[in-house]
Amino acid sequence: MTLSPTPRSTIKRGSKRAVTEREALHTVLDAGLVCHLAVVVDGAPLVLPTGYGRDGDTLYLHGSTGARSLREAATGVPVCVAVTLLDGVVYARSVFSHSMNYRAAVVHGTAVPVTNPDAKTHALKVLTEHLSPGSWDYARLPTPKELAATSVLALDLGEASVKIRTGPPGDEDADVAADERWAGVLPLRTAWGTPEPDPLLVADRDVPPHVSARR
Amino acid sequence: MTLSPTPRSTIKRGSKRAVTEREALHTVLDAGLVCHLAVVVDGAPLVLPTGYGRDGDTLYLHGSTGARSLREAATGVPVCVAVTLLDGVVYARSVFSHSMNYRAAVVHGTAVPVTNPDAKTHALKVLTEHLSPGSWDYARLPTPKELAATSVLALDLGEASVKIRTGPPGDEDADVAADERWAGVLPLRTAWGTPEPDPLLVADRDVPPHVSARR
Repeated sequence: MTLSPTPRSTIKRGSKRAVTEREALHTVLDAGLVCHLAVVVDGAPLVLPTGYGRDGDTLYLHGSTGARSLREAATGVPVCVAVTLLDGVVYARSVFSHSMNYRAAVVHGTAVPVTNPDAKTHALKVLTEHLSPGSWDYARLPTPKELAATSVLALDLGEASVKIRTGPPGDEDADVAADERWAGVLPLRTAWGTPEPDPLLVADRDVPPHVSARR
Repeated sequence: MTLSPTPRSTIKRGSKRAVTEREALHTVLDAGLVCHLAVVVDGAPLVLPTGYGRDGDTLYLHGSTGARSLREAATGVPVCVAVTLLDGVVYARSVFSHSMNYRAAVVHGTAVPVTNPDAKTHALKVLTEHLSPGSWDYARLPTPKELAATSVLALDLGEASVKIRTGPPGDEDADVAADERWAGVLPLRTAWGTPEPDPLLVADRDVPPHVSARR
């Protein structure tokens, strides 16, 4: 039933296995929409969901300047970021072997605030294109005031790990041999629904392709 | 684009608004499948996904006894737990007003290990029925050895908050008045797929109703 923890570890650059793992890390990060960012505040943990985007081996984290944990993270304290995708529930023959199929990435590091306007604009483009591909070219771009009101952090993906569970249950041999119960996986799918236009739209405008064709 | 942070706060029991908020908290917790559990290890934050289940105002957290952060949490250190459900991407007229629709719960507290066998069995039932309703009555129940190999924590929901965003974008008046671009919400849905039987099944067995009829 557990999503086992991803131990604090580094995917070492260079080795063949590391290349595979880094590709898996990138794939998981690119497939998620929201991350969970953890920081330490007054000795206690604080975790909150926030948007992110990846550019190479840099993870950008996004938040309003009012977000306490992002303010904390911006001071150079250690952060931990998790991205988890659920793929199914694993119904085993025994309660004990019940589990989930999932893809999980965990990143450790120190988040650095992005303050240079050009770098911040680039980071916001990465964040926007992760959340809503096509929006950067379609929507009104940030004003200097909006840029200033946005807090962006950069986190290196050097210390990261990825853990993936797929496939059928891992029941005990005796339970499998007894064959007394059904076992298998109930997949969990996510899909985009039908776009819901803002009631404040005046003109009768088609849903743009970057929204209507999103897969 | 941000999931704004849920500030550390308490839903006070008793008041009318608190009742509503507590119902919303319960609804969010009951709708999720995985939580993100954060603890402090050697002064640094650690966050990992794990299974959970709710019974009244108690949240049970589940993990193998090998899970480092659960071992840490079991020593009585402060924990923070987040459950986040994504409901859609909010395409605004401006990049700055892009957002997500979501339901997010955050719980602060001190997790207490559940060690009494009867209490642990009850907690495991709650966890199992959250992950896979019907499995407790259908699957083989835990042996004493399996029970001992499982770590369960209990966390009181006394200090918790819930934050929900719904509806269309919150664009600036000037952007709305200009009416130059489409804006709206692209909903994100999750749905169960077709059950995938374990290839190791011997008998030709129907998928049981608690799996096939899950909604």
